[in-house]
Amino acid sequence: MKLHELGEFGLIKRLSGDLLSRPAEVIRGAGDDAAVLQLDGSLWTLLTTDMLVEGVHFSLEWASPVQVGIKTVAVNVSDIAAMGGWPAHAVISLGLPERSTVEEIDELYRGIRQAAGEYGVNIVGGDTVKSPDRLVINLTLLGYVEAGRAVFRSGAGVGDRIYVTGGLGASAAGLFLCRHPALPVDPAVATCLRRAHLEPRARLAAGRLLSAAGVTAMDDISDGLAGELMEICRASGVGCLVREEAIPVDPRVRAVADLAGVDPLQWVLSGGEDFELLFTVPPGLAGPVEVKLAAAGENCYCIGEVIPSGSGLLLERAGGRVVPLQARGYDHFAG
Amino acid sequence: MKLHELGEFGLIKRLSGDLLSRPAEVIRGAGDDAAVLQLDGSLWTLLTTDMLVEGVHFSLEWASPVQVGIKTVAVNVSDIAAMGGWPAHAVISLGLPERSTVEEIDELYRGIRQAAGEYGVNIVGGDTVKSPDRLVINLTLLGYVEAGRAVFRSGAGVGDRIYVTGGLGASAAGLFLCRHPALPVDPAVATCLRRAHLEPRARLAAGRLLSAAGVTAMDDISDGLAGELMEICRASGVGCLVREEAIPVDPRVRAVADLAGVDPLQWVLSGGEDFELLFTVPPGLAGPVEVKLAAAGENCYCIGEVIPSGSGLLLERAGGRVVPLQARGYDHFAG
Repeated sequence: MKLHELGEFGLIKRLSGDLLSRPAEVIRGAGDDAAVLQLDGSLWTLLTTDMLVEGVHFSLEWASPVQVGIKTVAVNVSDIAAMGGWPAHAVISLGLPERSTVEEIDELYRGIRQAAGEYGVNIVGGDTVKSPDRLVINLTLLGYVEAGRAVFRSGAGVGDRIYVTGGLGASAAGLFLCRHPALPVDPAVATCLRRAHLEPRARLAAGRLLSAAGVTAMDDISDGLAGELMEICRASGVGCLVREEAIPVDPRVRAVADLAGVDPLQWVLSGGEDFELLFTVPPGLAGPVEVKLAAAGENCYCIGEVIPSGSGLLLERAGGRVVPLQARGYDHFAG
Repeated sequence: MKLHELGEFGLIKRLSGDLLSRPAEVIRGAGDDAAVLQLDGSLWTLLTTDMLVEGVHFSLEWASPVQVGIKTVAVNVSDIAAMGGWPAHAVISLGLPERSTVEEIDELYRGIRQAAGEYGVNIVGGDTVKSPDRLVINLTLLGYVEAGRAVFRSGAGVGDRIYVTGGLGASAAGLFLCRHPALPVDPAVATCLRRAHLEPRARLAAGRLLSAAGVTAMDDISDGLAGELMEICRASGVGCLVREEAIPVDPRVRAVADLAGVDPLQWVLSGGEDFELLFTVPPGLAGPVEVKLAAAGENCYCIGEVIPSGSGLLLERAGGRVVPLQARGYDHFAG
């Protein structure tokens, strides 16, 4: 069925059903000019938005519409996780090309609903418009965190330990495999890495634990480790020293990087979209934080320390040589 | 200056300054993963989002980037006004083509800032991405209304009077003039009508008054009067009878319609983007509502009555003939 057969009202009606996974707070969801939510005065509200453009953030050549939906939700939830909060309500704008079929949009929404249900997110409204050339999706997510408990980028102090919540580089390796399907990689490994890229997961539980544990700064790794380190250092007015040997790189990522003739560290530093959390902890809290995460079945790895701003952002290579950290995160407009 | 010369970080920094017109509530605005707001438990939070795509919702052939920015804010504020609330915090996603210049984006943001300041809106965050073909702007607006005071589409009752807050058709006439600049219209009139299309104003003060006055249903006229009447009737389970002679049409609109060979009523019923408010009032409240609006310098016009659902949606033409109301609002996907 083509979109014009259904019409806009039909499409909206089709998309409006069954979108509330936490209905108690929703006075009015989809179907009015604005969503109406009853909030609690003891909480802070978090609001984040991400736009995904076909051919820039995803390709329908290798991502299914379900996967695009999952990713749209996950990237926003990841921002809320990086604040230490929890997601609650989302509004979604869809810019749809005329070639879109209703089946495709249904699948996209199936992915959105699936991920929204998993993270406890209500879809409370949205906008649906024509986008002549490309599918464009914008999701805005409202979340909460206990008043005073949000973890900012700006809280890192000299001497803090720097941690990440999981192995890095899998998303970049997965994207490489999407682009080079003929690479002779074990199919199970290839599937796993491609999924890391196509169906990322937000580290919500870890973010909540870390907020409660008193970490000083946090960011999600959406733009490569180097870019996120740079953001925390800039916001906190500090430097960092990160040790290559301490950075957790999945052995499967190394294997693919070898076949691709790429330094896996480049994928880790500059390849975006791992959506792990990067955070800093005062030395005295590092032990308790590790214990808490481990008790909850969450990983974390200490990759370095916060140093004074004047020392810069440094990377100790495997051989012991210290070099400036190249902050080459994904820049949409770089020349 | 081209975008790639500035880079994404430079652009974000450029866009992040001076965006808070109500800083007291903002614990953290632009510059972190999510905005952090301290809310009040006695209020309902409103959340609305609108995507504007170049060539669909605006054309840079006749709209300046400043005007696109003004319109982006106004269309969202209009949704909040139609709930009876007030706008507070917004996040903006920009999808930017490579041809965009920094000057152009500065101008776009100048329009956004200007309108945001006027309506008391904080810009608390956003996302900036590449959009290869077209400029795409998504704004999500969080607003408030006193708990229990939101005006839904679904509250219209049989016997209620139907009102609009101002003259209609100016935006459609203005768009026609943008497309046909050679039409022999008085330049002052043409400027005024084009501005109605390019720099629409949200009826925020009227919306607040109407919410306090106890109107039963409300919608902003973003998709033509007929489409909005249909939405209220469908949501409320009622019909309507609207009198052509009672619909306020600006004489300048009639003059342009005559030159264009168009029935001005078609512009009013199907031409979108007037952003006036359409509302219903029980007969006993109609007098007090008119007095309150007049005292505040706001216009309103009674255009008909709510009738039982079985009677349908009816239009009494100027000669007295009653015909079905053609609900032909702007449908992005109509064949």
